[in-house]
Amino acid sequence: MPDFSTIQKISFIGSGNLATNLALGLQKAGLRIVEVFSPDKSHARQFANLINCTVADHLESINTESDLYLIAVPDDAIEDVGRSLPQFNGIAAHTSGISSIKSLASAKNHGVFYPLQTFTLGRKVDLAHVPFFIEGSDNHVINALKVLAGKLSDNVREITSDQRRQLHLAAVFVSNFPNHLFSIAEDILEEQGLGFDFLKPLIRETAAKVSSVSPASAQTGPARRNDSNTLEKHLEMLEQYPEYRKLYQLISEQIKKKYHE
Amino acid sequence: MPDFSTIQKISFIGSGNLATNLALGLQKAGLRIVEVFSPDKSHARQFANLINCTVADHLESINTESDLYLIAVPDDAIEDVGRSLPQFNGIAAHTSGISSIKSLASAKNHGVFYPLQTFTLGRKVDLAHVPFFIEGSDNHVINALKVLAGKLSDNVREITSDQRRQLHLAAVFVSNFPNHLFSIAEDILEEQGLGFDFLKPLIRETAAKVSSVSPASAQTGPARRNDSNTLEKHLEMLEQYPEYRKLYQLISEQIKKKYHE
Repeated sequence: MPDFSTIQKISFIGSGNLATNLALGLQKAGLRIVEVFSPDKSHARQFANLINCTVADHLESINTESDLYLIAVPDDAIEDVGRSLPQFNGIAAHTSGISSIKSLASAKNHGVFYPLQTFTLGRKVDLAHVPFFIEGSDNHVINALKVLAGKLSDNVREITSDQRRQLHLAAVFVSNFPNHLFSIAEDILEEQGLGFDFLKPLIRETAAKVSSVSPASAQTGPARRNDSNTLEKHLEMLEQYPEYRKLYQLISEQIKKKYHE
Repeated sequence: MPDFSTIQKISFIGSGNLATNLALGLQKAGLRIVEVFSPDKSHARQFANLINCTVADHLESINTESDLYLIAVPDDAIEDVGRSLPQFNGIAAHTSGISSIKSLASAKNHGVFYPLQTFTLGRKVDLAHVPFFIEGSDNHVINALKVLAGKLSDNVREITSDQRRQLHLAAVFVSNFPNHLFSIAEDILEEQGLGFDFLKPLIRETAAKVSSVSPASAQTGPARRNDSNTLEKHLEMLEQYPEYRKLYQLISEQIKKKYHE
Protein backbone atom coordinates (compact mmCIF):
# COMPACT_ATOMS: atom_id res chain seq x y z
CA MET A 1 0.00 0.00 0.00
CA PRO A 2 1.59 3.30 -1.03
CA ASP A 3 1.72 6.04 1.59
CA PHE A 4 -0.92 8.37 0.19
CA SER A 5 -0.59 10.83 3.02
CA THR A 6 2.54 12.14 1.36
CA ILE A 7 1.43 12.95 -2.18
CA GLN A 8 4.43 14.66 -3.70
CA LYS A 9 4.61 13.87 -7.41
CA ILE A 10 1.59 14.78 -9.57
CA SER A 11 0.83 14.21 -13.25
CA PHE A 12 -1.87 16.13 -15.12
CA ILE A 13 -4.14 14.77 -17.83
CA GLY A 14 -5.60 17.88 -19.45
CA SER A 15 -4.03 21.32 -19.76
CA GLY A 16 -6.95 23.78 -19.78
CA ASN A 17 -7.75 26.73 -17.47
CA LEU A 18 -8.67 24.51 -14.53
CA ALA A 19 -5.57 22.29 -14.90
CA THR A 20 -3.30 25.32 -15.23
CA ASN A 21 -4.72 27.09 -12.17
CA LEU A 22 -4.52 23.90 -10.08
CA ALA A 23 -0.97 23.15 -11.21
CA LEU A 24 0.20 26.67 -10.35
CA GLY A 25 -1.42 26.45 -6.92
CA LEU A 26 -0.03 22.98 -6.19
CA GLN A 27 3.44 24.00 -7.28
CA LYS A 28 3.33 27.04 -5.02
CA ALA A 29 2.27 24.74 -2.17
CA GLY A 30 5.44 22.70 -2.65
CA LEU A 31 4.14 19.80 -4.77
CA ARG A 32 6.05 18.54 -7.80
CA ILE A 33 4.20 18.53 -11.14
CA VAL A 34 6.21 16.01 -13.13
CA GLU A 35 4.30 15.46 -16.38
CA VAL A 36 1.33 16.53 -18.46
CA PHE A 37 -0.64 14.85 -21.21
CA SER A 38 -3.12 16.50 -23.55
CA PRO A 39 -4.36 15.40 -26.97
CA ASP A 40 -3.63 19.01 -28.01
CA LYS A 41 0.18 18.88 -28.10
CA SER A 42 0.75 22.64 -28.42
CA HIS A 43 -1.53 23.21 -25.44
CA ALA A 44 0.38 20.58 -23.45
CA ARG A 45 3.70 22.23 -24.35
CA GLN A 46 2.41 25.63 -23.17
CA PHE A 47 1.40 24.07 -19.86
CA ALA A 48 4.76 22.26 -19.60
CA ASN A 49 6.70 25.49 -20.27
CA LEU A 50 4.75 27.38 -17.63
CA ILE A 51 4.98 24.63 -15.01
CA ASN A 52 8.40 23.28 -16.05
CA CYS A 53 7.45 19.62 -16.46
CA THR A 54 7.70 17.01 -19.22
CA VAL A 55 5.04 16.24 -21.85
CA ALA A 56 3.81 12.65 -22.26
CA ASP A 57 3.37 11.63 -25.91
CA HIS A 58 0.61 9.12 -25.21
CA LEU A 59 -1.68 8.38 -22.31
CA GLU A 60 -0.47 4.81 -22.40
CA SER A 61 3.16 5.81 -21.94
CA ILE A 62 2.63 8.22 -19.05
CA ASN A 63 5.11 8.05 -16.16
CA THR A 64 3.74 5.49 -13.66
CA GLU A 65 5.72 6.78 -10.66
CA SER A 66 3.40 9.68 -9.71
CA ASP A 67 1.42 9.69 -6.47
CA LEU A 68 -1.55 11.38 -8.15
CA TYR A 69 -2.98 11.67 -11.67
CA LEU A 70 -5.27 14.68 -11.88
CA ILE A 71 -7.69 14.29 -14.76
CA ALA A 72 -9.06 17.68 -15.85
CA VAL A 73 -10.67 16.84 -19.19
CA PRO A 74 -14.20 17.22 -20.64
CA ASP A 75 -16.71 15.02 -18.80
CA ASP A 76 -17.40 12.72 -21.72
CA ALA A 77 -13.67 11.89 -21.95
CA ILE A 78 -13.03 10.95 -18.30
CA GLU A 79 -14.00 7.29 -18.57
CA ASP A 80 -11.89 6.74 -21.68
CA VAL A 81 -8.92 8.44 -20.08
CA GLY A 82 -9.26 6.21 -17.03
CA ARG A 83 -9.28 3.07 -19.17
CA SER A 84 -6.31 4.15 -21.29
CA LEU A 85 -4.00 4.83 -18.37
CA PRO A 86 -1.32 2.23 -17.60
CA GLN A 87 -1.25 0.41 -14.27
CA PHE A 88 0.12 2.47 -11.40
CA ASN A 89 0.05 2.55 -7.61
CA GLY A 90 -0.99 6.18 -7.28
CA ILE A 91 -4.45 7.76 -7.24
CA ALA A 92 -6.45 8.77 -10.33
CA ALA A 93 -8.80 11.67 -9.53
CA HIS A 94 -10.99 13.80 -11.80
CA THR A 95 -11.92 17.43 -11.22
CA SER A 96 -15.46 17.37 -12.65
CA GLY A 97 -18.55 18.74 -10.98
CA ILE A 98 -20.96 16.34 -12.60
CA SER A 99 -19.21 13.03 -13.38
CA SER A 100 -19.63 10.24 -10.85
CA ILE A 101 -16.61 8.89 -9.01
CA LYS A 102 -17.45 5.61 -10.77
CA SER A 103 -16.24 6.99 -14.10
CA LEU A 104 -12.69 6.25 -12.85
CA ALA A 105 -13.47 2.81 -11.39
CA SER A 106 -11.01 1.22 -13.83
CA ALA A 107 -8.19 2.60 -11.65
CA LYS A 108 -7.62 0.77 -8.37
CA ASN A 109 -7.29 3.95 -6.26
CA HIS A 110 -9.56 6.65 -7.57
CA GLY A 111 -11.32 9.77 -6.40
CA VAL A 112 -12.68 13.23 -7.10
CA PHE A 113 -10.92 16.54 -6.50
CA TYR A 114 -13.48 19.22 -7.41
CA PRO A 115 -12.80 22.91 -6.86
CA LEU A 116 -16.04 24.95 -6.98
CA GLN A 117 -14.81 27.95 -8.94
CA THR A 118 -14.85 29.40 -12.47
CA PHE A 119 -11.52 29.33 -14.28
CA THR A 120 -11.13 31.66 -17.23
CA LEU A 121 -8.26 32.01 -19.67
CA GLY A 122 -5.81 34.65 -18.54
CA ARG A 123 -7.06 34.98 -14.95
CA LYS A 124 -5.11 33.52 -12.06
CA VAL A 125 -7.56 32.55 -9.32
CA ASP A 126 -6.63 32.72 -5.64
CA LEU A 127 -7.48 29.24 -4.37
CA ALA A 128 -7.14 30.01 -0.64
CA HIS A 129 -10.90 30.06 0.06
CA VAL A 130 -12.19 28.02 -2.90
CA PRO A 131 -14.28 25.06 -1.67
CA PHE A 132 -12.72 21.71 -2.63
CA PHE A 133 -15.05 18.69 -2.65
CA ILE A 134 -13.46 15.29 -2.21
CA GLU A 135 -14.49 11.69 -2.88
CA GLY A 136 -12.37 8.59 -2.78
CA SER A 137 -12.54 4.85 -3.42
CA ASP A 138 -11.45 4.24 0.20
CA ASN A 139 -10.46 6.16 3.31
CA HIS A 140 -6.78 6.28 2.38
CA VAL A 141 -7.63 8.01 -0.88
CA ILE A 142 -10.09 10.36 0.81
CA ASN A 143 -7.55 11.38 3.41
CA ALA A 144 -4.76 11.83 0.89
CA LEU A 145 -6.93 14.09 -1.29
CA LYS A 146 -8.18 16.01 1.75
CA VAL A 147 -4.63 16.68 2.94
CA LEU A 148 -3.65 17.79 -0.54
CA ALA A 149 -6.65 20.12 -0.94
CA GLY A 150 -5.89 21.49 2.52
CA LYS A 151 -2.54 22.73 1.18
CA LEU A 152 -4.43 24.89 -1.33
CA SER A 153 -7.56 25.99 0.53
CA ASP A 154 -9.05 26.38 4.00
CA ASN A 155 -12.37 25.05 2.68
CA VAL A 156 -12.23 21.28 2.07
CA ARG A 157 -15.10 18.83 2.45
CA GLU A 158 -15.99 15.25 1.64
CA ILE A 159 -19.33 14.87 -0.16
CA THR A 160 -21.16 12.35 -2.34
CA SER A 161 -21.35 12.39 -6.14
CA ASP A 162 -25.03 13.31 -5.82
CA GLN A 163 -24.35 16.34 -3.66
CA ARG A 164 -21.54 17.40 -5.97
CA ARG A 165 -23.91 17.36 -8.95
CA GLN A 166 -26.26 19.65 -7.06
CA LEU A 167 -23.43 22.04 -6.26
CA HIS A 168 -22.45 22.03 -9.91
CA LEU A 169 -26.01 22.84 -10.96
CA ALA A 170 -26.22 25.63 -8.38
CA ALA A 171 -22.88 26.96 -9.66
CA VAL A 172 -24.36 27.34 -13.15
CA PHE A 173 -27.13 29.51 -11.67
CA VAL A 174 -24.75 31.78 -9.72
CA SER A 175 -21.95 32.05 -12.27
CA ASN A 176 -22.57 31.07 -15.90
CA PHE A 177 -26.09 32.50 -16.01
CA PRO A 178 -25.32 35.83 -14.29
CA ASN A 179 -22.39 36.22 -16.67
CA HIS A 180 -24.79 35.83 -19.61
CA LEU A 181 -26.98 38.56 -18.08
CA PHE A 182 -23.89 40.78 -17.85
CA SER A 183 -23.31 40.29 -21.56
CA ILE A 184 -26.94 41.26 -22.30
CA ALA A 185 -26.42 44.48 -20.33
CA GLU A 186 -23.25 45.12 -22.29
CA ASP A 187 -25.20 44.75 -25.57
CA ILE A 188 -27.91 47.17 -24.40
CA LEU A 189 -25.43 49.84 -23.31
CA GLU A 190 -23.21 49.47 -26.36
CA GLU A 191 -26.21 50.34 -28.55
CA GLN A 192 -26.47 53.63 -26.58
CA GLY A 193 -22.76 54.43 -26.70
CA LEU A 194 -22.52 53.84 -22.95
CA GLY A 195 -19.71 51.79 -21.47
CA PHE A 196 -20.10 48.55 -19.51
CA ASP A 197 -17.69 50.11 -16.97
CA PHE A 198 -20.59 52.04 -15.38
CA LEU A 199 -22.07 48.73 -14.21
CA LYS A 200 -18.98 47.36 -12.47
CA PRO A 201 -19.52 48.91 -9.02
CA LEU A 202 -23.11 47.61 -9.10
CA ILE A 203 -21.99 44.11 -10.11
CA ARG A 204 -19.44 44.06 -7.30
CA GLU A 205 -21.96 45.24 -4.68
CA THR A 206 -24.57 42.71 -5.88
CA ALA A 207 -22.04 39.91 -5.32
CA ALA A 208 -20.77 41.38 -2.05
CA LYS A 209 -24.15 41.84 -0.40
CA VAL A 210 -25.08 38.15 -0.48
CA SER A 211 -22.02 37.54 1.72
CA SER A 212 -23.90 39.12 4.60
CA VAL A 213 -27.60 39.03 3.57
CA SER A 214 -29.45 36.00 2.13
CA PRO A 215 -30.34 36.41 -1.58
CA ALA A 216 -34.06 36.39 -0.77
CA SER A 217 -33.67 39.36 1.61
CA ALA A 218 -31.28 41.08 -0.78
CA GLN A 219 -33.77 41.08 -3.68
CA THR A 220 -34.54 44.58 -4.99
CA GLY A 221 -35.80 46.04 -8.27
CA PRO A 222 -39.05 46.73 -10.11
CA ALA A 223 -40.35 43.13 -10.02
CA ARG A 224 -39.61 42.86 -6.29
CA ARG A 225 -41.56 46.09 -5.73
CA ASN A 226 -44.30 44.91 -8.11
CA ASP A 227 -43.78 48.23 -9.93
CA SER A 228 -45.86 47.61 -13.08
CA ASN A 229 -45.09 50.99 -14.65
CA THR A 230 -41.36 50.38 -14.68
CA LEU A 231 -41.79 46.76 -15.80
CA GLU A 232 -43.91 47.94 -18.73
CA LYS A 233 -41.44 50.65 -19.70
CA HIS A 234 -38.55 48.18 -19.63
CA LEU A 235 -40.47 45.69 -21.79
CA GLU A 236 -41.16 48.47 -24.29
CA MET A 237 -37.47 49.39 -24.37
CA LEU A 238 -36.63 45.75 -25.10
CA GLU A 239 -38.84 45.53 -28.19
CA GLN A 240 -35.79 45.46 -30.47
CA TYR A 241 -34.37 42.51 -28.49
CA PRO A 242 -37.10 39.81 -28.54
CA GLU A 243 -34.85 37.21 -26.85
CA TYR A 244 -33.83 39.51 -24.01
CA ARG A 245 -37.43 40.61 -23.65
CA LYS A 246 -38.57 37.01 -23.17
CA LEU A 247 -35.93 36.49 -20.51
CA TYR A 248 -36.81 39.78 -18.77
CA GLN A 249 -40.45 38.72 -18.69
CA LEU A 250 -39.79 35.22 -17.35
CA ILE A 251 -37.45 36.29 -14.55
CA SER A 252 -39.70 39.21 -13.55
CA GLU A 253 -42.73 36.91 -13.39
CA GLN A 254 -40.80 34.52 -11.14
CA ILE A 255 -39.68 37.32 -8.81
CA LYS A 256 -43.22 38.73 -8.59
CA LYS A 257 -44.59 35.25 -7.87
CA LYS A 258 -41.96 34.57 -5.19
CA TYR A 259 -42.50 37.78 -3.23
CA HIS A 260 -46.11 38.75 -3.96
CA GLU A 261 -48.13 35.55 -4.03
CA MET B 1 -30.50 83.73 -8.72
CA PRO B 2 -29.30 81.57 -5.80
CA ASP B 3 -25.67 80.53 -5.83
CA PHE B 4 -26.13 76.85 -6.61
CA SER B 5 -22.42 76.13 -6.64
CA THR B 6 -22.48 76.16 -2.89
CA ILE B 7 -25.21 73.66 -2.01
CA GLN B 8 -24.99 73.35 1.76
CA LYS B 9 -28.45 72.68 3.17
CA ILE B 10 -30.33 69.63 1.91
CA SER B 11 -33.85 68.33 2.62
CA PHE B 12 -34.92 64.77 1.86
CA ILE B 13 -38.33 63.65 0.61
CA GLY B 14 -38.32 59.90 1.22
CA SER B 15 -36.48 57.95 3.87
CA GLY B 16 -35.78 54.52 2.32
CA ASN B 17 -32.48 52.69 1.76
CA LEU B 18 -31.37 54.98 -1.05
CA ALA B 19 -32.23 58.17 0.89
CA THR B 20 -30.49 56.90 4.01
CA ASN B 21 -27.31 55.92 2.19
CA LEU B 22 -27.18 59.23 0.32
CA ALA B 23 -27.83 61.23 3.48
CA LEU B 24 -25.05 59.46 5.37
CA GLY B 25 -22.64 60.04 2.51
CA LEU B 26 -23.58 63.69 2.10
CA GLN B 27 -23.27 64.33 5.80
CA LYS B 28 -19.84 62.72 5.85
CA ALA B 29 -18.87 64.99 2.94
CA GLY B 30 -19.73 68.04 5.07
CA LEU B 31 -23.24 68.83 3.82
CA ARG B 32 -26.06 69.69 6.23
CA ILE B 33 -29.18 67.50 6.09
CA VAL B 34 -31.76 69.76 7.70
CA GLU B 35 -35.11 68.02 7.27
CA VAL B 36 -36.87 64.90 6.06
CA PHE B 37 -40.41 64.16 4.97
CA SER B 38 -41.98 60.76 4.49
CA PRO B 39 -45.64 59.71 4.49
CA ASP B 40 -44.48 56.91 6.83
CA LYS B 41 -43.86 58.95 9.98
CA SER B 42 -42.06 56.25 11.96
CA HIS B 43 -39.74 55.71 9.03
CA ALA B 44 -39.08 59.46 8.84
CA ARG B 45 -38.32 59.57 12.56
CA GLN B 46 -35.81 56.71 12.23
CA PHE B 47 -34.08 58.60 9.43
CA ALA B 48 -34.14 61.84 11.47
CA ASN B 49 -32.65 60.08 14.51
CA LEU B 50 -29.85 58.59 12.46
CA ILE B 51 -29.06 61.79 10.57
CA ASN B 52 -29.97 64.21 13.35
CA CYS B 53 -32.39 66.41 11.41
CA THR B 54 -36.01 67.55 11.84
CA VAL B 55 -39.11 65.80 10.46
CA ALA B 56 -41.56 67.80 8.33
CA ASP B 57 -45.20 67.02 9.10
CA HIS B 58 -46.47 67.80 5.63
CA LEU B 59 -44.88 68.23 2.23
CA GLU B 60 -46.61 71.62 1.99
CA SER B 61 -44.99 72.87 5.18
CA ILE B 62 -41.46 71.77 4.40
CA ASN B 63 -38.66 74.24 5.19
CA THR B 64 -38.17 76.42 2.07
CA GLU B 65 -34.63 77.54 2.90
CA SER B 66 -32.78 74.47 1.63
CA ASP B 67 -30.48 74.61 -1.38
CA LEU B 68 -31.56 71.16 -2.53
CA TYR B 69 -34.62 68.90 -2.12
CA LEU B 70 -33.63 65.32 -2.87
CA ILE B 71 -36.71 63.30 -3.81
CA ALA B 72 -36.11 59.58 -3.28
CA VAL B 73 -39.65 58.19 -3.53
CA PRO B 74 -41.34 55.52 -5.72
CA ASP B 75 -41.43 56.58 -9.36
CA ASP B 76 -45.19 56.95 -9.55
CA ALA B 77 -45.10 59.43 -6.64
CA ILE B 78 -42.43 61.82 -7.98
CA GLU B 79 -44.75 64.06 -9.99
CA ASP B 80 -47.23 64.43 -7.11
CA VAL B 81 -44.43 65.25 -4.68
CA GLY B 82 -43.12 67.92 -7.07
CA ARG B 83 -46.55 69.54 -7.31
CA SER B 84 -47.17 69.46 -3.57
CA LEU B 85 -43.94 71.20 -2.63
CA PRO B 86 -44.14 74.87 -1.66
CA GLN B 87 -42.33 77.54 -3.67
CA PHE B 88 -38.59 77.71 -2.98
CA ASN B 89 -35.41 79.01 -4.62
CA GLY B 90 -33.46 75.77 -4.31
CA ILE B 91 -33.26 72.80 -6.63
CA ALA B 92 -35.67 69.84 -6.63
CA ALA B 93 -33.95 66.67 -7.88
CA HIS B 94 -35.13 63.08 -7.99
CA THR B 95 -32.94 59.98 -7.70
CA SER B 96 -34.84 57.69 -10.07
CA GLY B 97 -33.34 55.62 -12.85
CA ILE B 98 -36.42 55.64 -15.03
CA SER B 99 -38.46 58.83 -14.45
CA SER B 100 -37.90 61.68 -16.87
CA ILE B 101 -36.50 64.96 -15.61
CA LYS B 102 -39.85 66.43 -16.74
CA SER B 103 -41.62 64.77 -13.83
CA LEU B 104 -40.29 67.63 -11.68
CA ALA B 105 -41.03 70.41 -14.18
CA SER B 106 -43.41 72.02 -11.66
CA ALA B 107 -40.32 73.21 -9.75
CA LYS B 108 -38.45 76.12 -11.31
CA ASN B 109 -35.01 74.62 -10.77
CA HIS B 110 -35.09 70.88 -11.15
CA GLY B 111 -32.86 67.98 -11.99
CA VAL B 112 -31.88 64.35 -11.57
CA PHE B 113 -29.30 62.91 -9.17
CA TYR B 114 -29.14 59.18 -9.97
CA PRO B 115 -26.64 56.87 -8.29
CA LEU B 116 -26.30 53.58 -10.20
CA GLN B 117 -26.14 51.19 -7.27
CA THR B 118 -28.31 48.77 -5.29
CA PHE B 119 -29.20 49.88 -1.79
CA THR B 120 -30.37 47.21 0.63
CA LEU B 121 -31.65 47.56 4.15
CA GLY B 122 -28.86 47.19 6.67
CA ARG B 123 -25.95 47.60 4.25
CA LYS B 124 -23.93 50.80 4.12
CA VAL B 125 -22.64 51.27 0.59
CA ASP B 126 -19.31 52.95 -0.13
CA LEU B 127 -20.25 55.67 -2.64
CA ALA B 128 -16.67 56.60 -3.63
CA HIS B 129 -16.80 54.87 -7.04
CA VAL B 130 -20.57 54.71 -7.59
CA PRO B 131 -21.48 56.35 -10.92
CA PHE B 132 -23.75 59.39 -10.44
CA PHE B 133 -25.77 60.51 -13.45
CA ILE B 134 -26.89 64.13 -13.54
CA GLU B 135 -29.51 66.11 -15.41
CA GLY B 136 -30.64 69.68 -14.82
CA SER B 137 -33.18 72.23 -16.03
CA ASP B 138 -30.29 74.59 -16.87
CA ASN B 139 -26.51 74.75 -16.68
CA HIS B 140 -26.50 76.23 -13.18
CA VAL B 141 -28.47 73.27 -11.86
CA ILE B 142 -26.33 70.78 -13.79
CA ASN B 143 -23.13 72.27 -12.40
CA ALA B 144 -24.45 72.45 -8.85
CA LEU B 145 -25.50 68.78 -8.92
CA LYS B 146 -22.22 67.75 -10.56
CA VAL B 147 -20.20 69.53 -7.87
CA LEU B 148 -22.31 67.89 -5.17
CA ALA B 149 -22.00 64.39 -6.67
CA GLY B 150 -18.26 64.99 -6.98
CA LYS B 151 -18.09 65.29 -3.22
CA LEU B 152 -19.40 61.71 -2.94
CA SER B 153 -17.89 59.92 -5.92
CA ASP B 154 -15.09 60.10 -8.50
CA ASN B 155 -17.52 58.93 -11.19
CA VAL B 156 -19.98 61.70 -12.18
CA ARG B 157 -21.48 62.23 -15.61
CA GLU B 158 -24.21 64.25 -17.30
CA ILE B 159 -26.54 62.14 -19.45
CA THR B 160 -30.02 62.36 -20.97
CA SER B 161 -33.21 60.85 -19.51
CA ASP B 162 -33.18 58.35 -22.39
CA GLN B 163 -29.66 57.15 -21.64
CA ARG B 164 -30.47 56.95 -17.93
CA ARG B 165 -33.44 54.64 -18.65
CA GLN B 166 -31.12 52.33 -20.59
CA LEU B 167 -28.65 52.25 -17.70
CA HIS B 168 -31.50 51.44 -15.35
CA LEU B 169 -32.65 48.58 -17.58
CA ALA B 170 -29.07 47.27 -17.83
CA ALA B 171 -28.81 47.49 -14.04
CA VAL B 172 -31.80 45.17 -13.65
CA PHE B 173 -29.98 42.59 -15.80
CA VAL B 174 -26.71 42.78 -13.82
CA SER B 175 -28.14 43.11 -10.31
CA ASN B 176 -31.80 42.22 -9.65
CA PHE B 177 -31.83 39.25 -12.02
CA PRO B 178 -28.51 37.69 -10.90
CA ASN B 179 -29.71 38.06 -7.31
CA HIS B 180 -32.82 36.05 -8.22
CA LEU B 181 -30.56 33.35 -9.69
CA PHE B 182 -28.61 33.34 -6.41
CA SER B 183 -31.83 32.66 -4.54
CA ILE B 184 -32.66 29.76 -6.89
CA ALA B 185 -29.23 28.25 -6.12
CA GLU B 186 -29.92 28.71 -2.42
CA ASP B 187 -33.22 26.80 -2.81
CA ILE B 188 -31.50 23.94 -4.67
CA LEU B 189 -28.72 23.57 -2.09
CA GLU B 190 -31.02 23.90 0.91
CA GLU B 191 -32.97 20.89 -0.35
CA GLN B 192 -29.66 18.93 -0.20
CA GLY B 193 -28.63 20.19 3.22
CA LEU B 194 -25.78 22.13 1.62
CA GLY B 195 -25.05 25.72 2.58
CA PHE B 196 -25.20 28.73 0.26
CA ASP B 197 -21.80 29.68 1.75
CA PHE B 198 -20.04 27.27 -0.61
CA LEU B 199 -21.08 29.46 -3.54
CA LYS B 200 -19.76 32.77 -2.22
CA PRO B 201 -16.18 32.53 -3.55
CA LEU B 202 -17.62 31.63 -6.97
CA ILE B 203 -20.06 34.55 -6.89
CA ARG B 204 -17.26 36.94 -5.98
CA GLU B 205 -14.96 35.66 -8.74
CA THR B 206 -17.79 35.81 -11.32
CA ALA B 207 -18.27 39.50 -10.48
CA ALA B 208 -14.55 40.21 -10.27
CA LYS B 209 -13.60 38.70 -13.58
CA VAL B 210 -15.76 41.04 -15.67
CA SER B 211 -13.68 43.91 -14.29
CA SER B 212 -10.81 42.75 -16.49
CA VAL B 213 -12.43 40.54 -19.15
CA SER B 214 -15.57 41.37 -21.19
CA PRO B 215 -18.61 39.25 -20.21
CA ALA B 216 -18.68 37.64 -23.66
CA SER B 217 -15.07 36.41 -23.26
CA ALA B 218 -15.69 35.44 -19.64
CA GLN B 219 -18.59 33.09 -20.48
CA THR B 220 -17.98 29.51 -19.30
CA GLY B 221 -20.20 26.55 -18.44
CA PRO B 222 -22.01 23.65 -20.13
CA ALA B 223 -24.07 25.79 -22.54
CA ARG B 224 -20.96 27.73 -23.60
CA ARG B 225 -19.18 24.42 -24.29
CA ASN B 226 -22.31 23.05 -25.97
CA ASP B 227 -21.99 20.09 -23.59
CA SER B 228 -25.33 18.33 -24.20
CA ASN B 229 -24.72 15.55 -21.67
CA THR B 230 -24.35 17.98 -18.77
CA LEU B 231 -27.25 20.14 -19.97
CA GLU B 232 -29.49 17.07 -20.07
CA LYS B 233 -28.40 15.90 -16.62
CA HIS B 234 -29.07 19.35 -15.17
CA LEU B 235 -32.54 19.49 -16.73
CA GLU B 236 -33.29 16.08 -15.25
CA MET B 237 -32.18 17.25 -11.82
CA LEU B 238 -34.53 20.24 -12.14
CA GLU B 239 -37.62 18.14 -12.75
CA GLN B 240 -38.98 18.96 -9.30
CA TYR B 241 -38.59 22.71 -10.03
CA PRO B 242 -40.57 23.33 -13.24
CA GLU B 243 -40.09 27.12 -13.04
CA TYR B 244 -36.33 26.93 -12.55
CA ARG B 245 -36.15 24.31 -15.28
CA LYS B 246 -37.85 26.66 -17.74
CA LEU B 247 -35.39 29.41 -16.87
CA TYR B 248 -32.41 27.04 -17.13
CA GLN B 249 -33.58 26.00 -20.56
CA LEU B 250 -34.18 29.53 -21.85
CA ILE B 251 -30.83 30.93 -20.71
CA SER B 252 -28.91 27.87 -21.93
CA GLU B 253 -30.58 28.13 -25.35
CA GLN B 254 -29.57 31.79 -25.56
CA ILE B 255 -25.96 31.06 -24.60
CA LYS B 256 -25.74 28.22 -27.13
CA LYS B 257 -27.20 30.45 -29.83
CA LYS B 258 -24.83 33.31 -29.02
CA TYR B 259 -21.63 31.27 -29.13
CA HIS B 260 -22.43 28.38 -31.47
CA GLU B 261 -24.54 29.76 -34.32
